[in-house]
Amino acid sequence: MTWHRRHLLDIESLAPEEILLVLDTARAFKAVGQRAIKKVPALRGKTVVNLFIEPSTRTRTSFELAAVRLSADVINFNAEASSFKKGETLKDTARNLEALNADIFIIRHSAAGAPHFLARCVAGSVVNAGDGAHEHPTQALLDTFTIREKKGRIAGLNVVILGDILYSRVARSNIWALTKLGAHVTLCGPSTLVPRTFEQLGCRVSHNVDDAIASADVINLLRIQHERQRKTMFPGIGEYASLFGLNQARLARTRPEVLIMHPGPINRGVEIDSEIADGGRSVILEQVTNGLAVRMAALFLINGGQGPQALGE
Amino acid sequence: MTWHRRHLLDIESLAPEEILLVLDTARAFKAVGQRAIKKVPALRGKTVVNLFIEPSTRTRTSFELAAVRLSADVINFNAEASSFKKGETLKDTARNLEALNADIFIIRHSAAGAPHFLARCVAGSVVNAGDGAHEHPTQALLDTFTIREKKGRIAGLNVVILGDILYSRVARSNIWALTKLGAHVTLCGPSTLVPRTFEQLGCRVSHNVDDAIASADVINLLRIQHERQRKTMFPGIGEYASLFGLNQARLARTRPEVLIMHPGPINRGVEIDSEIADGGRSVILEQVTNGLAVRMAALFLINGGQGPQALGE
Amino acid sequence: MTWHRRHLLDIESLAPEEILLVLDTARAFKAVGQRAIKKVPALRGKTVVNLFIEPSTRTRTSFELAAVRLSADVINFNAEASSFKKGETLKDTARNLEALNADIFIIRHSAAGAPHFLARCVAGSVVNAGDGAHEHPTQALLDTFTIREKKGRIAGLNVVILGDILYSRVARSNIWALTKLGAHVTLCGPSTLVPRTFEQLGCRVSHNVDDAIASADVINLLRIQHERQRKTMFPGIGEYASLFGLNQARLARTRPEVLIMHPGPINRGVEIDSEIADGGRSVILEQVTNGLAVRMAALFLINGGQGPQALGE
Repeated sequence: MTWHRRHLLDIESLAPEEILLVLDTARAFKAVGQRAIKKVPALRGKTVVNLFIEPSTRTRTSFELAAVRLSADVINFNAEASSFKKGETLKDTARNLEALNADIFIIRHSAAGAPHFLARCVAGSVVNAGDGAHEHPTQALLDTFTIREKKGRIAGLNVVILGDILYSRVARSNIWALTKLGAHVTLCGPSTLVPRTFEQLGCRVSHNVDDAIASADVINLLRIQHERQRKTMFPGIGEYASLFGLNQARLARTRPEVLIMHPGPINRGVEIDSEIADGGRSVILEQVTNGLAVRMAALFLINGGQGPQALGE
Repeated sequence: MTWHRRHLLDIESLAPEEILLVLDTARAFKAVGQRAIKKVPALRGKTVVNLFIEPSTRTRTSFELAAVRLSADVINFNAEASSFKKGETLKDTARNLEALNADIFIIRHSAAGAPHFLARCVAGSVVNAGDGAHEHPTQALLDTFTIREKKGRIAGLNVVILGDILYSRVARSNIWALTKLGAHVTLCGPSTLVPRTFEQLGCRVSHNVDDAIASADVINLLRIQHERQRKTMFPGIGEYASLFGLNQARLARTRPEVLIMHPGPINRGVEIDSEIADGGRSVILEQVTNGLAVRMAALFLINGGQGPQALGE
Repeated sequence: MTWHRRHLLDIESLAPEEILLVLDTARAFKAVGQRAIKKVPALRGKTVVNLFIEPSTRTRTSFELAAVRLSADVINFNAEASSFKKGETLKDTARNLEALNADIFIIRHSAAGAPHFLARCVAGSVVNAGDGAHEHPTQALLDTFTIREKKGRIAGLNVVILGDILYSRVARSNIWALTKLGAHVTLCGPSTLVPRTFEQLGCRVSHNVDDAIASADVINLLRIQHERQRKTMFPGIGEYASLFGLNQARLARTRPEVLIMHPGPINRGVEIDSEIADGGRSVILEQVTNGLAVRMAALFLINGGQGPQALGE
């Protein structure tokens, strides 16, 4: 299997073999993060532009560090101070950055499809770092990487995604990745946030959390973004925590080897209790470490690298 | 011809041969931007400080990338978060940065003359990235580079600069560069924004756009900064677009080989119609690419580099 | 003497020999700042995270440049745009950054003890860049370095620290460093800001500036942070300048070889007159230069470097 894509825009369009190639390549890069000198020269002399129109220190930092460890030069394009404020369009911004001969654009944007639009404007590569409620492909790849590393496989596993599914790009990308690799995916949360239409994506939909998690191998909790919840569709925070939050009583009724995942930042005491977040079943911090490896792999592959062999493995 | 200046503060004080040396050096650096590895070691170990007191993502990014491609280390000094807010003077800020042994300061400031003041305070080199309504020398150099590349010469060309001349540092620097190299410069716009006093700089002044552009080889459009236009001196946006905007009807009455230029960001439908901005006569995006080459050349020369020969040409 | 600490959290816990080792190492790094190529490869491939929760361009820039000159990769974690705004705790932020395998964290925080807390959360090294009113160890080290360089010694010198002692982390760290190395320290300022309890730290307390500075070898002025002074405890600015500001009349009554120091940014005409700040006894800008050398030394030592010998001296 070799990689032929110039962009990483979504999971939906990837073949299972492509997903696996990213995961295998990421495994090689994870080892780089354990070395004293955590750099490889793969992208030396290449220019990576971080174009985060929505603020995100966490994901931006992960991508910036991934690029730096590949020896690329990173330019952080600060949308706050930018020409966007003067009314410039995304297309004009993209073409101007393109004129600077940047090699890779990493874009986060509140509009679904913005990365695909950008990919049609520029000669360089584009990586989607989250577009509206559409997709967040590197999050799904790092989640899948983590599950595979811990469980040895994806196929046949019961994975529960729990929270605000309706507006979650993390959920959408995870659904695509997991179902392509053969997992059984159950979506769970309040009925206003987990409509039955998701069954068309090949998932089970449940509004009873205790029922959903009883046979789960993995529980992936989504962040409750209470700063922007729609008042009419969301119960109160306390009510959500009581009905859907992962607490010790609920955890006691799951399989002993269940993995607890969360894309962060976590709301302690809302979607997850502190002791569980910091406990032995939680792989939340390993997800962060794996995110770096997966992003190094993605940047490496779209730049023309050819899988783990190229790293001397 | 060798370069003897420690700073690049304005175009007014440059001899024509100095301007040409920057342009010739920029041509060598433009080729670097086409390579797979877009870096040269010319400024390795040097520290470049980006001191942008006025916000500008576009120009700052161009300078940052120019410095990075010369292998310099770049520190972005964020004026928003800085001691300026605590009432520190430019002189104290400059001397403090100087005490860090920075090699090159790139400064944008709302006060005309700020870069010249800085140059007297510090031992390092200073590049003016725009000072009030005074000068923006690298913009003029990249404009001149683009014209020369497309037309093969500057001398004898008819260049029209169209827009708000009175408050434009882009216009002032272009007037100096173009007249020194022998072009015929016509300034055009509303009479409140293009006073007759500019004739003293060796330009023609016109308030009739159709007349001005009829025999133009180059039309350089300035951005209408409607967010800060003086109400009493400026017509409405719609009125400006109708009277001075470059539309298809107007373009049809120009020479077929006329170059359309704009320093960006453009206001589509105000000073220029979208189809013209994206059309075959527009070199707006090439200006961006050339800006990077010109800034690499400027940084290289003031740091003691000696023209294109030093790059192995 | 070899260095055994993984963190630099305060001066209070350092032995005099450890302070001297940092100063000796800094002397070697100061020479690096005089070279044409101001870089050494000591931290190549290491990741340094600048975690400034309180804004500070000046100190952040100094640390960033120190890390860059040691060839480290620096990630600026922008607290404004970060998950802090979404309510994430310092512990969660720290553990997430830790999961990225950063080697060194440089933290400024408004809460005293935040760096110590961070040091318990992460496997990497932590440098305190200022925590509340507690300590600012690299400031004290650069001040001590400057005094020793100019006076040849610390022991036996009369050092006056003048200003708002009560809320000053600069004062606290200086008191520890200077008394450990045998200086006689006098604290001076309005009685509301310089309580007698400081005598327990081995200092003299004076509320009469003319008396305090008469026999001083060094006067270290603190910045009057009038933007955040407690109204009930602080005289007006004019009254402070008149009663405690260092002006020519006061300076005339000091020893001719007295050193005038200030951590910056200075308030000209408040705690110090302009001519004195720019005059021959002032070492304010040398403090900035020395700060870079001291910070290079600190990063070098906590990363496992073993004193000036390792630099080939």
